[in-house]
Amino acid sequence: MVIVMAAEGTQQDVDAIVELVAKAGGDAFVSRGVSRTIIGLVGDVEQFGSLNLKSMPGVAEVMRVSTPYKLVSRENHPERSTVRVGGVPIGPETVTLIAGPCAVETHDQTLAAARMAQAAGATLLRGGAYKPRTSPYAFQGLGEAGLRILADVREETGLPVVTEVVDAHDVELVASYADMLQVGTRNAQNFGLLQAVGSVGRPVMLKRGMSATIEEWLMAAEYIAQRGNLDIVLCERGIRTFETATRNTLDVSAVPVVQRLSHLPVIIDPSHSGGRRDLVLPLTRSAIAVGADGVIIDVHPRPEQALCDGPQALVDGDLDELAVIMRDFPPLLGRTAATTLTPVA
Amino acid sequence: MVIVMAAEGTQQDVDAIVELVAKAGGDAFVSRGVSRTIIGLVGDVEQFGSLNLKSMPGVAEVMRVSTPYKLVSRENHPERSTVRVGGVPIGPETVTLIAGPCAVETHDQTLAAARMAQAAGATLLRGGAYKPRTSPYAFQGLGEAGLRILADVREETGLPVVTEVVDAHDVELVASYADMLQVGTRNAQNFGLLQAVGSVGRPVMLKRGMSATIEEWLMAAEYIAQRGNLDIVLCERGIRTFETATRNTLDVSAVPVVQRLSHLPVIIDPSHSGGRRDLVLPLTRSAIAVGADGVIIDVHPRPEQALCDGPQALVDGDLDELAVIMRDFPPLLGRTAATTLTPVA
Amino acid sequence: MVIVMAAEGTQQDVDAIVELVAKAGGDAFVSRGVSRTIIGLVGDVEQFGSLNLKSMPGVAEVMRVSTPYKLVSRENHPERSTVRVGGVPIGPETVTLIAGPCAVETHDQTLAAARMAQAAGATLLRGGAYKPRTSPYAFQGLGEAGLRILADVREETGLPVVTEVVDAHDVELVASYADMLQVGTRNAQNFGLLQAVGSVGRPVMLKRGMSATIEEWLMAAEYIAQRGNLDIVLCERGIRTFETATRNTLDVSAVPVVQRLSHLPVIIDPSHSGGRRDLVLPLTRSAIAVGADGVIIDVHPRPEQALCDGPQALVDGDLDELAVIMRDFPPLLGRTAATTLTPVA
Amino acid sequence: MVIVMAAEGTQQDVDAIVELVAKAGGDAFVSRGVSRTIIGLVGDVEQFGSLNLKSMPGVAEVMRVSTPYKLVSRENHPERSTVRVGGVPIGPETVTLIAGPCAVETHDQTLAAARMAQAAGATLLRGGAYKPRTSPYAFQGLGEAGLRILADVREETGLPVVTEVVDAHDVELVASYADMLQVGTRNAQNFGLLQAVGSVGRPVMLKRGMSATIEEWLMAAEYIAQRGNLDIVLCERGIRTFETATRNTLDVSAVPVVQRLSHLPVIIDPSHSGGRRDLVLPLTRSAIAVGADGVIIDVHPRPEQALCDGPQALVDGDLDELAVIMRDFPPLLGRTAATTLTPVA
Repeated sequence: MVIVMAAEGTQQDVDAIVELVAKAGGDAFVSRGVSRTIIGLVGDVEQFGSLNLKSMPGVAEVMRVSTPYKLVSRENHPERSTVRVGGVPIGPETVTLIAGPCAVETHDQTLAAARMAQAAGATLLRGGAYKPRTSPYAFQGLGEAGLRILADVREETGLPVVTEVVDAHDVELVASYADMLQVGTRNAQNFGLLQAVGSVGRPVMLKRGMSATIEEWLMAAEYIAQRGNLDIVLCERGIRTFETATRNTLDVSAVPVVQRLSHLPVIIDPSHSGGRRDLVLPLTRSAIAVGADGVIIDVHPRPEQALCDGPQALVDGDLDELAVIMRDFPPLLGRTAATTLTPVA
Repeated sequence: MVIVMAAEGTQQDVDAIVELVAKAGGDAFVSRGVSRTIIGLVGDVEQFGSLNLKSMPGVAEVMRVSTPYKLVSRENHPERSTVRVGGVPIGPETVTLIAGPCAVETHDQTLAAARMAQAAGATLLRGGAYKPRTSPYAFQGLGEAGLRILADVREETGLPVVTEVVDAHDVELVASYADMLQVGTRNAQNFGLLQAVGSVGRPVMLKRGMSATIEEWLMAAEYIAQRGNLDIVLCERGIRTFETATRNTLDVSAVPVVQRLSHLPVIIDPSHSGGRRDLVLPLTRSAIAVGADGVIIDVHPRPEQALCDGPQALVDGDLDELAVIMRDFPPLLGRTAATTLTPVA
Repeated sequence: MVIVMAAEGTQQDVDAIVELVAKAGGDAFVSRGVSRTIIGLVGDVEQFGSLNLKSMPGVAEVMRVSTPYKLVSRENHPERSTVRVGGVPIGPETVTLIAGPCAVETHDQTLAAARMAQAAGATLLRGGAYKPRTSPYAFQGLGEAGLRILADVREETGLPVVTEVVDAHDVELVASYADMLQVGTRNAQNFGLLQAVGSVGRPVMLKRGMSATIEEWLMAAEYIAQRGNLDIVLCERGIRTFETATRNTLDVSAVPVVQRLSHLPVIIDPSHSGGRRDLVLPLTRSAIAVGADGVIIDVHPRPEQALCDGPQALVDGDLDELAVIMRDFPPLLGRTAATTLTPVA
Repeated sequence: MVIVMAAEGTQQDVDAIVELVAKAGGDAFVSRGVSRTIIGLVGDVEQFGSLNLKSMPGVAEVMRVSTPYKLVSRENHPERSTVRVGGVPIGPETVTLIAGPCAVETHDQTLAAARMAQAAGATLLRGGAYKPRTSPYAFQGLGEAGLRILADVREETGLPVVTEVVDAHDVELVASYADMLQVGTRNAQNFGLLQAVGSVGRPVMLKRGMSATIEEWLMAAEYIAQRGNLDIVLCERGIRTFETATRNTLDVSAVPVVQRLSHLPVIIDPSHSGGRRDLVLPLTRSAIAVGADGVIIDVHPRPEQALCDGPQALVDGDLDELAVIMRDFPPLLGRTAATTLTPVA
């Protein structure tokens, strides 16, 4: 931690800080420049965090020089992790395709979407039974009935299930049906929910908050990790910017940045970021090419009847092209498309 | 609702839409321009919303022309509302000062902060017992013990209590202590929590999500209203932008914009938006001057020892100036500082 | 300047940096923490800037701890400055009202707008002869004919003239007519133009770039100051954010932040930030209350016929209220409304 | 164009608009919904634009339904264009690699960088002689001496030259040396410069303004096109967002969005968007995969000595990997790497 003193900071101000740090068991070294004095702190940073140094007289700025997350950091865990979901890996050796309907509506619709997904190379099924919607007047999902449909379709297709949970008190119920729990963008700082999914023993897909910095996103993952669950897959799904031509702005750069900071796998959601069907395949290519460990895509047998996000779902005619992408792009990155047969790294 | 057809949209595409709308009980009128065809829809918009018109062939854009919120809209409720919290009004006739510590730490600290607040003209006490924190390693609040402290300090000072609730399942507990429930910026789209606070019969302060548009904010309020609770006070607390000199960018324009769209009162939080003590008083002046129905401010007897957000808390020396602001500014807006004695409008 | 080494930085990496800094005439002190090594640099920061330290092996981050601007900084010029425009002060003792039409269209329209402005308390006249427009098909201004109209109206009303210049090669021409040159938001990093207005001996109003950080804005001012002109007034006019209810988001917090960092006066443009007539008066109140040294406002005798930005211009009926604001708000800030009679500080 | 009346709009308000539109030679059709009245306008939209309809009484909103740009729009020019620079195509059949130093410093440095670029497959040379810098204290480029170096290196390597122009009055000079003129992000709305580069008969690379919407970017291109020059290549280089881990946020989605709206080629700058060397190759892959018609990349023989943007330049060791990307990725998109030998489409 580095403290920059204000130009008007006095020697007493400096002394007071040195003393405070010493009391907290740390060391402070002082360096005087032409216009500013800098104090470097050595010791247990968390300890210093509670000292409220920014409120001390004469302090202009306090800069942290270590990362505030530990368990998900790559500093202490240099090798990138692979998370397994019902036998399917998500990690640095593979590209995993997760696909399915945005919302579970009926058994037939879900099964049809799952078959479409599978044909394109998907080895995990996505589908929402609990839908957080901006409007209270919009379709909110089927709830447990939707979970049962997902479990039935898993039975019929063999695809493990990824589904969203929106309330800490539903975590056990959802976990009893699902192979992987998804935490959505609107809950990216719902800390009670993060702790609950961290405690239930299921892999978690954590979407980036639509206005979360990469650091805040990793801090959210740390909440999950702290409860003993390191089977976390991060999912970039677009951030909020001034541009309105797309629903959100897909931040592909986040993938290599996160992979350098954290050992956790990172995937991309090209459907929700753009919000437009015509962008899904270009963004899928872009996602795999930038090094994402997987992609999660909306497909729907009849998007014009979808109860949620129809305009962005891929349809039958798009799937051949998706299958070609899944065949041709991973090898260029030294990867293979992930299946249950992918050997354990 | 207005549908703009793509340049390549055909007559069949148009006919299909007209037929679909007619089936849904609406009327569609078609108008052909030089380069584009427009279809206007008349009837029940919610009904059309489920038609997924944006996925129909030939459609370029679907534009809604009515507001998606009803209960909180000023269209059906032209008069601006006043919400009463333990007898203290928040509404168009007054300026209400809510103040207190960011986090409840001890009884002494809370009482001292409450006395400071009261001296400056505050008639409601703020204080957090449940603190949503970006880092899992930061102080998370005292929980129910904090609520008890708040209740004791209310007893000693007469100030009704505003406090945050972060989990739907704590709502009844918090409501049993508090006069007003606060929903924080990170929970602004935690729809389960919004529904829970809408059902418990206590006034609610709803902070704006830090990346929520004004429309999304009003939709969040609609979630509360839909459960039968219209005692909602909106609170602008800064939005996330590219500027890093302040923690967030206080959007003062949101106040007159919201007051035109909704009948609900709107207040401003100058402490959390700026994140710096030296900005609190200028932003408080600015907030009252732009027409806010109140302000909510952090005060702390010893900010350098605060467990949360010390750098932004006002201290003793600032309070005289705050009292002067509360005396001089409201009359210029044709308002009075709100007290329990403020006559019912 | 502080260098944070990467976790994988070696002793050789550190030595190389120390040596490089020593060669450049500076001192480097090294401090080893538990997980990171920090190097503090003492000496001439500009010198270090050219060393490209961020490209050295083992370096994680380079943090500057002094401000990159000098001439406009308050560090070396603690007293806030007053800029005089044709005898009218803009500075810490006063609130200056600048008003007039967005674009000069005809002599009659400009004179009518100037009379309206004057009635409301304006002591400087704004009006654009060169209009930078997003669309090449929009009205681009009258050019020199517009400047002549402004000069004539100054003659008739006594109001000194503020007008925009958009090209470095027009600076002398515009300066021959105008009392103050305005650099618009789209030219906030047009460095050739900044240098030209810095050389011509006229006060300059520098609008903030719509996506400029406060630091970049002050660096733009430094370009002007470097050419010998310190008669610079900064103008906050809204920044670009995700919110679309207003044209831009007025960043009122920027006023106290800038006043702490720089000695230059800062005013606010409530017309262009909101882009809506109904927001102009509330934002004007807010601007004065937050401590702005002035406001610049669009007025138009017949906004429905305006060739530019009609929807945001104040009309006759708004002016009484504006006059009341100019009478009542400045005294609460310990200021007076600025006139040519304001005594020199 | 569609006009939405406010709830409080009267029949007279509607009649006044219909009459105004009729006078302007257009047709207005009125449709009354349950809560709102809508007026659709048919005819010459530019004509209506000058009517200032938004300022008419009773009007809530005016929505444009056609694009405001014409010459660069794909509506009137469905086939995507190819721009040739010194014989090298940039267009839908190819992927063009443009590379070279950020700033021209010396002949040796520029030649070394050009050789590096060529080895990696570059067929156009980039290099800046005029550098717009945020700080007036930073290196501003060699000016005409730099242009002469570029011309010499073109002679020695056969690579046509792309270089930036920052002032309308330098356009002829720069065009006398360069094969393609670059307009930088800070000048993306410097309309005088846009018009000047539109008039000089050289291909233009137009970078996106760092806070420009896609529509504003295309309007800027329209300024160039309007002067008779349609040899325009658009360049996405990252937009300004709240995320600070990267210098800007690369908006890859902009590529397919623009390619649908405009016939102009679009390339990506992975160097300036991320601002970090370790991101350049992943973002280059991502750029080609999303469908960009080319990439422009900084290379430098000794980045730690670079006078500008050293931290983001590729070095020798990166070039083999870049060459592999240029060999393997274009074919997956049905393209070839562009050379002077690429047959004219």
